[in-house]
Amino acid sequence: MTTETLVRDRPRPSEPDRATEMAEIGRRAREAAVALALASAEAKVTALCDAAAAVRARAAEILAANARDLAEAETQGVSSALRDRLALDPKRVEAIAAGLEAIAALPDPVGRVLAQWERPNGLEIQRVAVPLGVIGIIYESRPNVTADAGALALKSGNAAILRGGSESFYSSRALVAALVEGLRSAGLPEASIQLVPTRDRAAVGLLLKMTGAIDIIVPRGGPGLIERVQRESRIPVIAHLEGLCHTYVDGAADPQKARAIVLNAKMRRVSICGATETLLVDRAFATTKLQAILGDLRDAGCELRGDPEILTIDPGLVPATEVDWQTEYLDAILAVRIVDGVAGAIDHISRYGSQHTDAIITEDKETAERFLREVDSAIVLVNASTQFADGGEFGMGAEIGISTQRLPPRGPVGAEQLTTYKYLVRGKGQVRP
Amino acid sequence: MTTETLVRDRPRPSEPDRATEMAEIGRRAREAAVALALASAEAKVTALCDAAAAVRARAAEILAANARDLAEAETQGVSSALRDRLALDPKRVEAIAAGLEAIAALPDPVGRVLAQWERPNGLEIQRVAVPLGVIGIIYESRPNVTADAGALALKSGNAAILRGGSESFYSSRALVAALVEGLRSAGLPEASIQLVPTRDRAAVGLLLKMTGAIDIIVPRGGPGLIERVQRESRIPVIAHLEGLCHTYVDGAADPQKARAIVLNAKMRRVSICGATETLLVDRAFATTKLQAILGDLRDAGCELRGDPEILTIDPGLVPATEVDWQTEYLDAILAVRIVDGVAGAIDHISRYGSQHTDAIITEDKETAERFLREVDSAIVLVNASTQFADGGEFGMGAEIGISTQRLPPRGPVGAEQLTTYKYLVRGKGQVRP
Repeated sequence: MTTETLVRDRPRPSEPDRATEMAEIGRRAREAAVALALASAEAKVTALCDAAAAVRARAAEILAANARDLAEAETQGVSSALRDRLALDPKRVEAIAAGLEAIAALPDPVGRVLAQWERPNGLEIQRVAVPLGVIGIIYESRPNVTADAGALALKSGNAAILRGGSESFYSSRALVAALVEGLRSAGLPEASIQLVPTRDRAAVGLLLKMTGAIDIIVPRGGPGLIERVQRESRIPVIAHLEGLCHTYVDGAADPQKARAIVLNAKMRRVSICGATETLLVDRAFATTKLQAILGDLRDAGCELRGDPEILTIDPGLVPATEVDWQTEYLDAILAVRIVDGVAGAIDHISRYGSQHTDAIITEDKETAERFLREVDSAIVLVNASTQFADGGEFGMGAEIGISTQRLPPRGPVGAEQLTTYKYLVRGKGQVRP
Repeated sequence: MTTETLVRDRPRPSEPDRATEMAEIGRRAREAAVALALASAEAKVTALCDAAAAVRARAAEILAANARDLAEAETQGVSSALRDRLALDPKRVEAIAAGLEAIAALPDPVGRVLAQWERPNGLEIQRVAVPLGVIGIIYESRPNVTADAGALALKSGNAAILRGGSESFYSSRALVAALVEGLRSAGLPEASIQLVPTRDRAAVGLLLKMTGAIDIIVPRGGPGLIERVQRESRIPVIAHLEGLCHTYVDGAADPQKARAIVLNAKMRRVSICGATETLLVDRAFATTKLQAILGDLRDAGCELRGDPEILTIDPGLVPATEVDWQTEYLDAILAVRIVDGVAGAIDHISRYGSQHTDAIITEDKETAERFLREVDSAIVLVNASTQFADGGEFGMGAEIGISTQRLPPRGPVGAEQLTTYKYLVRGKGQVRP
């Protein structure tokens, strides 16, 4: 039996049927987006809170669906690390429900007056936040992303077409059923949050071509996915590329803060995009104070790769090569390099960084401000762990990813970042001379 | 003699040479962008004011270059309308210089704190405006765009690579020389504003492929140009698509305001993207008060195309077809249609509009607010001409175009809209639990 027949409850549609099905999903999403853009803040809050209640009420059903995903994953030899990320338990289901309530509690991002001014001719101009429209979200494995992505899109007045990871297909379907229950009870269109009803990979290709139906594509996954989206689709993208994050320990760093931050930045969780991949150390700090940091990392099970100069301080490191400065390990490996002060650090980061998140550790205010100003990354931190690169940690309730593109939205993408704006101009009969 | 040999002062590079030349332009632009991002507001103001002075001092040179463009345009049988747009005279040169000073006088858009908050763990977060980086601007004919585009890019701390219309090649080159004089006198990199030194069309293809060197492409021209950019380039685009603008005259419109606004919205200048292309008229207005509006338009030389119902009121109109509702004429032609109140107008606009600019004329506040809320266009106006869709009219000093995309920047793109942002996070040793 193929994966596909295992997965689907009804016969697999032929190619043209799949295209018709996807077009119908797009048509319904567009219709829902028009209604959602005008929905009251209260209706959206009701939908999210009732969805949270539905997640709790349907916990058994959601866990059963998750068990089915897990069983299939095991059959297919999916790694235990991946199965861990996929697995739900009552605590994680409760966290999903609480997450929906947290998003419900955020200020409504739609209708905010972002700026207003009056022109000498009396025209009153306002820039007002409005939803983006229909968002297509393509993501991998973890089922909680289904709830987060659907809820953030809803909060910001957007219709969502979700294409989840195939490993979490049944879990996602059960979660979307709960979200739809919330929508129904708030009187909002059920098509506000739709899950692509198949794991068939062809559906992604169709999704990427739905130029009229989808306004924005959000790929949340590995570089392969993002490259595919950028290659195949002409729909604008909010892209989340790699996080090759640096922590720079300045000569004026507090050694205790440096120890705690570096250990956390690298090892708290090694697989997230905000994990530090390269440690840059000021020569002035390295000679006497670096050993304690390296010792902590080693004790925590981190492999250390160093440049020749570090090797003279600690010959226990693996020699680093040029490739190490370019690598997002997402693993318990850290590249370590000596640099000449903050200028050397900025130089290294501008050469090898991915403009995602970079941090400096220093007690020197001027050096800190220089680093903040000159490092051209979405997030630049002073005396804090790069692992704070997260919408939740920024107070956005949740995030749909960290945008590494230059045009807004840049950095963590929460509900507010899923809006755009329009200009309202109120006149009294003005004509242009 | 081919156009190309006429145009160039030095031998034409072979294909690989052209690629090397473009790569070198990209490398220099990147270097300039790094310096510009850190340039003081004062230095940018100096550069722009000194550039304005240089434009005035070099007026004769600029006019001679323009005469060369015009002579070639005539040889090549360019239409007199296009030659009109291309032509400079001392008054237009002075307007270009004054435009540079107006952009200099704008508030500096870089470094603005767009938002700031503190997290419960004590992290202080700021969202701060920063330049986009290197902007590639591809545009057509009018030489003043060279000055506007270069100056807006500079004001917002971006390096610009300008690829002007081939008809205005010499004029643009003379203007860029003046801009560079301003840069030099302010101590800013001369490569901050570069003109692609050839009219060779292959250069555009090369420009569109410079993914590492160029952060944003701004195509300013016809739909053919924009489609080419979107097809050939993977660089993010700020796109200016068509302006199929509507003016809706509500039953509660003031007839005098309606006459003045409609005439202005259509006929002030028919070739700009903010010109009204379709007039929607509430049935309640049409029967008694429409004739005066149609009379004004006819007197001004506008061809009128109407739906069958209008033809019963005024049989002098050309019958409109489905295609008329879909056409951006950019000419003295107006499609006119009767609709059922504001709901009918919103419905028509959502079906046929290009989400650029739409206006309602009404004295009914509630109807006006409904139109503002439900029409999903970059600019929505009440009781004012659609021809106000312009960065200058919005108080932005100048514009590089009107973005019709959904993600920001949407609407008029001035200096502020050519920035993005980054997050600065100041901590005291925080690690993520």
